Amino acid sequence: MAVLPRVLKRLIIGSPVSSERAGHTLLPKRLALPIFASDALSSVAYATQEIMLVLTVGGAAYLYLAPWVAGAVVVLMAAVVLSYRQLVRAYPTGGGDYEVASKNIGRSAGVVVASALLVDYVMTVAVSVSSGVDNIISAIPSAAPHRVLLALLFLVLLAAVNLRGLKEAGLAFAAPTYLFTAGVFIMIGTGLVRIIIGDTPVAESAKYHLETQHGYGSLSFFALTFFTLRAFSSGCTALTGVEAIANGVPAFKPPKARNAQRTLVAMGLIAVSMFVGLTALALVSKVHVTDPTSNSCHFRNFVGDCHTHEQKTVIAQVASAVLGGPHSVGFFFVQATTALILVLAANTAFNGFPLLGSILARDKNLPAQLNNRGDRLAYSNGILMLAVFAGALIWIYEANVTRLIQLYIIGVFTSFTLGQSGMVRHWNRAIRTERDPMERRRIRTSRAINAFGASLSGIVLVIVIITKFTKGAYLVLIAMPILYLIMRAINKHYARVAEELATEDTGLVLPSRNHSIVLVSKVHKPTLRALAFAKATHPDTLTALTVNIEDEDTRRLQAEWERHDLPVPLTVLESPYREVARPLIGYIRQLRENRPRDLVNVFIPEYVVGHWWEQLLHNQRALRIKGRLLFQPGVMVTSVPWQLHSSEAVRRPDAPAGSRPGT
Amino acid sequence: MAVLPRVLKRLIIGSPVSSERAGHTLLPKRLALPIFASDALSSVAYATQEIMLVLTVGGAAYLYLAPWVAGAVVVLMAAVVLSYRQLVRAYPTGGGDYEVASKNIGRSAGVVVASALLVDYVMTVAVSVSSGVDNIISAIPSAAPHRVLLALLFLVLLAAVNLRGLKEAGLAFAAPTYLFTAGVFIMIGTGLVRIIIGDTPVAESAKYHLETQHGYGSLSFFALTFFTLRAFSSGCTALTGVEAIANGVPAFKPPKARNAQRTLVAMGLIAVSMFVGLTALALVSKVHVTDPTSNSCHFRNFVGDCHTHEQKTVIAQVASAVLGGPHSVGFFFVQATTALILVLAANTAFNGFPLLGSILARDKNLPAQLNNRGDRLAYSNGILMLAVFAGALIWIYEANVTRLIQLYIIGVFTSFTLGQSGMVRHWNRAIRTERDPMERRRIRTSRAINAFGASLSGIVLVIVIITKFTKGAYLVLIAMPILYLIMRAINKHYARVAEELATEDTGLVLPSRNHSIVLVSKVHKPTLRALAFAKATHPDTLTALTVNIEDEDTRRLQAEWERHDLPVPLTVLESPYREVARPLIGYIRQLRENRPRDLVNVFIPEYVVGHWWEQLLHNQRALRIKGRLLFQPGVMVTSVPWQLHSSEAVRRPDAPAGSRPGT
Repeated sequence: MAVLPRVLKRLIIGSPVSSERAGHTLLPKRLALPIFASDALSSVAYATQEIMLVLTVGGAAYLYLAPWVAGAVVVLMAAVVLSYRQLVRAYPTGGGDYEVASKNIGRSAGVVVASALLVDYVMTVAVSVSSGVDNIISAIPSAAPHRVLLALLFLVLLAAVNLRGLKEAGLAFAAPTYLFTAGVFIMIGTGLVRIIIGDTPVAESAKYHLETQHGYGSLSFFALTFFTLRAFSSGCTALTGVEAIANGVPAFKPPKARNAQRTLVAMGLIAVSMFVGLTALALVSKVHVTDPTSNSCHFRNFVGDCHTHEQKTVIAQVASAVLGGPHSVGFFFVQATTALILVLAANTAFNGFPLLGSILARDKNLPAQLNNRGDRLAYSNGILMLAVFAGALIWIYEANVTRLIQLYIIGVFTSFTLGQSGMVRHWNRAIRTERDPMERRRIRTSRAINAFGASLSGIVLVIVIITKFTKGAYLVLIAMPILYLIMRAINKHYARVAEELATEDTGLVLPSRNHSIVLVSKVHKPTLRALAFAKATHPDTLTALTVNIEDEDTRRLQAEWERHDLPVPLTVLESPYREVARPLIGYIRQLRENRPRDLVNVFIPEYVVGHWWEQLLHNQRALRIKGRLLFQPGVMVTSVPWQLHSSEAVRRPDAPAGSRPGT
Repeated sequence: MAVLPRVLKRLIIGSPVSSERAGHTLLPKRLALPIFASDALSSVAYATQEIMLVLTVGGAAYLYLAPWVAGAVVVLMAAVVLSYRQLVRAYPTGGGDYEVASKNIGRSAGVVVASALLVDYVMTVAVSVSSGVDNIISAIPSAAPHRVLLALLFLVLLAAVNLRGLKEAGLAFAAPTYLFTAGVFIMIGTGLVRIIIGDTPVAESAKYHLETQHGYGSLSFFALTFFTLRAFSSGCTALTGVEAIANGVPAFKPPKARNAQRTLVAMGLIAVSMFVGLTALALVSKVHVTDPTSNSCHFRNFVGDCHTHEQKTVIAQVASAVLGGPHSVGFFFVQATTALILVLAANTAFNGFPLLGSILARDKNLPAQLNNRGDRLAYSNGILMLAVFAGALIWIYEANVTRLIQLYIIGVFTSFTLGQSGMVRHWNRAIRTERDPMERRRIRTSRAINAFGASLSGIVLVIVIITKFTKGAYLVLIAMPILYLIMRAINKHYARVAEELATEDTGLVLPSRNHSIVLVSKVHKPTLRALAFAKATHPDTLTALTVNIEDEDTRRLQAEWERHDLPVPLTVLESPYREVARPLIGYIRQLRENRPRDLVNVFIPEYVVGHWWEQLLHNQRALRIKGRLLFQPGVMVTSVPWQLHSSEAVRRPDAPAGSRPGT
C-alpha cells in the first residue's frame, strides 16, 4: 500500500487496536439502550406517517381507523417484546433468532432466518437514512434536490464510524437517542397540556382537503379490510429493530441476560409511548399527508404544484403545530434530533449485520472473510458489504422512504416467526426434563408467551406479504430465497472441502525424489539467484529450462549461458505454438511418469517492483505459468523474488495488515 | 479457463498455428495491394465530400475552388508516393517512417513518429468504419438510428478477423477492394460518356439551393485563403494510408522491395484517378452537401427537417445520378462495395498498429506483451488495444465522420515529414561514401525527391494544424505528447531494470544456510503435504509456524498437532493486531539477523479449485501474505498446491496458452 492510502486509512479508522482489548468494549445498559434501540425508537418517526398515507386513499374518510390500527401495532409490539424477553433468558449467549431457529428447528430454518435478517438489515439502513434525510428536508426545504447525495454521504459516514469500532460508536450515538426521546416526550407533553387547556394545536396541512383517490370513494367491506390491513402492515415498521437487543446480548456487561432483558422492556415502553402520543397528536392536529409516489395530487386546494413541493413529514408537522411554528426553536430541536436518530438508527444494522455475518461465516454459511476482525476489532468486511448494498438500494429507489418501506419488515417478521417458533420448541424440550413444579410453571408461561408471539408474527407476516406484494414486496420474496440458496451452496462447498482435506493419520509421506527445474529466459541476476537458491535445496536433479519461442532469442540465450560457464546445463524445450505452460507441463509429466511419489519443484525468477504501473510491464507471464502449474499433481512452485530498487519503499513492516494463511 | 470460453475462443479465432508457418503468410502483390492499399483507396470515398463541405460555408459561391483544391491534393499525393518509393528502396526490411526517423534523426524523432502513427491508426479505424456505416445508411436510410451500434459491430468483426491471422485477412479483403475500384471506374467511365454525349447527370441534391452561412457571404482574401486551405486540409485525408505499404515491406514476397515499390505506384495511380474522376463528376452533377455538425440548415428549399433527414454521401449521390437513380443495381453495387471497402480499410490499421506495436515493444518503448504472437501468429494484444481505443472514439464521437476527420491526418503528416526528413539525412550519409558517379546521381535524385516530399508534408502539416486546430485537432496535439512521454518513461524503466539486473559474472553465490518455514493454520492434508515437501528440500532448519489470531483456534490447533505426533514442533507467533504478515516478517528478519547470506524458504499450503466462485471462498490470505513476503530480501516463497476434485477439469494440458517466464 502506498503512503497516501495508508495515511488516509489511519485518519478514517484510527490506529489498530489489540485483540486483548476485545473484552473492554462491553456495554453498560445506558449505552446499550441507544446503540441497540435507536432503530426501534426511531421507527416511531415514520410509522405513524406510513399508516396515515395508506388510510388517505379514500380522502379523510378513513382516518378514523388510524387509532385502531395504531392500537393493533401496540398490542403486537407488547407481544413481541415479551417474547424476546423469554428468548434472552433462554439464550444469554446471543445469536438471536438465527441461533434459536438453527438449534430448535434445524439448520435450514436458521439459514432462512439469516437470509431474512441480512435482507432486513440492508433495508433498515436504506429506510432509516432516507427518512433522516426527509426530516432534514422538512426543516431545510432547499436541501431537497440533494436527497440521494445526502443519504449516501450519511451512509459513508456511518460505515466509517463503524469501521472505527463498537465502543466509539456507542459513545457517539448515546446522546442523540436520548435527546430525540426527550424532544418527543416534551412535544407530546406540551401537546397534551394544550389540548387540556383547550388550545388544541392545528397542523399547517390541516387546511388542505384530502382528495379521494379515484375509485376509493366508498370501499366495499372487503376492500376496506384490505386497506386497513395494509395500513397496519405499514405501521408494523414500528417493530423493526426490536430483535437487535436479543442478537446483541454478548455485548452487554454482565449480568448480560438480566441487563439485556431490562433494556428490552425499557425500549418497548418508550417506543410504545412515543408512537401512541405522536399518532394521537397527528390525528388531533389534523395532519394531512398524501402519497408522493401516487400519480395524482390529492390536496384539492393546494397552492402550486404538489409534486414539486416537498411535503413535510408527520413528525415535522406535529412539532411545528405543537411547539410554535416552523421557525421555533422547539421545532428545530425535534427535527434535528429526529434526523440524527434516524441516520444513527441505521447504526443498529451496522452492529447487527457484521455480527450476524461473522456468526454465519463461523458456521460456514458465508465466506470466511466475514469472520475477520479488522484493525479496530470490527468485522470490517461485513460493514463494507452492508454499506455497498444499502447504498445501491438508496441509489435505485432515490432515497424515497415510501417506496423503500414496501420492501421492509417481511424479513423482520420472517425472523420473528421462526425465532419464536424455535422458542416454543425450546420450552417443549425443557419441560420434558424439568421436575421442579415452580420452574415448570415458569416454562409453561414462557411457552405460552412465545407461542402467542409466534402466531401473531406469523399472521402479520402473511398480512404484510398479501397487502404489500404488488407494491414491491415480491422483490424481497425473490432476494431471500436466492440468498438462502447461496448460503446453502457455500455451506455445501466448505463441507465438501473439509471432508476432502481431512487427514487419515498417515503421517508425513516424503516424496521419493525431488526434481528441481529453474525457468530461464535470460542470463541475469534473478536467474542466477534462482539457480543458487534451487541448488541450496539439494534436489536429486536440477535442470535449467528454457522454452524456445523465437529461435533467435534462444540461440542468444544459449551463447550467453555458455559464456557464463554455469554449473547446470541448459535444457531447451521446443514450443511450436509459442506457449510456455504446455511444453513445461509435458516435461514435468514425463519426469514423473511411473513415479507418482516424485516431487517437481519449479523455480520461477520474479521481479518485485514498487509501483502498480511497473507491475503492468513485468511478470504477467510468470503469474500465468504459476497459475497453470498449480493444477498439476506432485508439483510445487517457488517464486524467487528479485527486489528492484523501486520496491524498497514497500518493504517496511508497517505496510497493510495480512491475516491467516492457508484457508 | 473453463470449457465454454475456450470453445468460443477457438470458434472465433481458429486453432493455433505453428510458428514455423510464419514464413507462409508472405503476400504476393495481388494480395498486398488490397491489404495495404484499402485505406488509401477507400479515403477517396470521403475526401471529395470533406472538401465540398468546407467550401459550402459561403453557399455555392466558392465551389469553383474545388478543382484547384483537388489538384493540390493530387500533386501532394504524387510527391508522397514518389518519396515513399525512395524509402522502400533504402529500407527493404520495413519499419517505415519509425525506423527511418529513429536511425537517421534519433530515437526521440522515432518515438515522435511512433506516437503520431499510433494515434493515426486509431483514427483510421474510427473514420473508416464510421464512413462505411454512412454509406450503408445512404443506401438503407432506415438503418440511421443504429449508426453507433453498426459501427461497433463492424469493429468487433474486424478485430475477430485479424485475430485469426494475416493470411486469411488478405484473402477476405482482396475481393471487395477490387470490386470497389471496378465499381468506381465504371461509374466514372459511364459519367464521362454521358457528359460527352450531352446527357450530363444531375444529382438529386442539385435542386437544393445552398444557403450561405451567416457572415460568410463575401469573404476577405485572407478568410478565403483560410477556407481554401481548410478545404485542402480536409482533402488531404485522401493521402492517409499511403505509408502502409512502406511499413509492410517485410510481409511482401521477395523481391520484397521491388514488389512493394510497384504496389505503391499502382496504388498511387489508382487513387489519384478515382479521386479526380469522382470530384469532377460531383461538381458537374451539382452535388450539394451541408455540414451536419453545423447548427443552421443550409438548404433553403429543403422539404422537411434537414437535421433529422439523413444526408446522402457524395459518392452515393454521384452513383445515383450517374448509374440510374437510388434504386438502380449500379447504385447499390457502388454503395455496397464502398461501405465494404471503408469498413475493410480499417483493416490497414489492424495490420499496421499491431506490427508497429511489436516493433516498439522490441525496442522497449511499449510493454513487452505487445511483442507476443497469439495462437494464430497475429500480435493479439495490439489488435485488442486498437479495437478498444477506436471503439471509444466511435462511441464518444457517435460515429460522425465529419467530427472525427478533424482529428485525423495530423499524425499522418507528422510521420510523413519526419520520415522524409530522415530519408534526406540517409542520402546525405550515403553520398559521402559512394564513389560510383551513376549511383551518386541516383542518390542525388532520390534526395531531391525526399527533400521535396519532406518540405511539402511539413507545409501541409502546418496548414492542417492551423486550419483544424479549433475543430478538434488540439486533442491530437495533446494526445501525441502524452503518448510520447509514456513511451519514453517505459523505455527508461526497462533500461534501468536491465542495468540493475546485468550480471557481474560472479557465478552462483550459494546461500550459507537454508531455513524452511511451513505456514500452518489447520492440521489437514495440504499442511501435511507442505511439511513433507519442505522436508524433501533438506533444509538446515525446518519450522512449522502458526500465527495466533484467536486464542481458542490456536489452542485447538496445538492439541491437534500433538495428537498427530508430527516430527516437527509447532511454533506459535503472537499477533496482537490480528495480522499474519507482520509477525512473520519480524520472525524472518530475526532468523536472518547478521546472516545476510542465509535463505528463508516459506512454504504456503494452497487449495486449487476449479471455479472462479470457489476462488472467492479460499486463498485470499495466502495470496496477500505471498505478496508481502516477496518484498523481503533473502526470502523465497513456495506454493504447495492441494488440488481439490473440482480442479480436475482444468488440469488438461490443452488449457489456454502461456508464454515465456521471468520477463
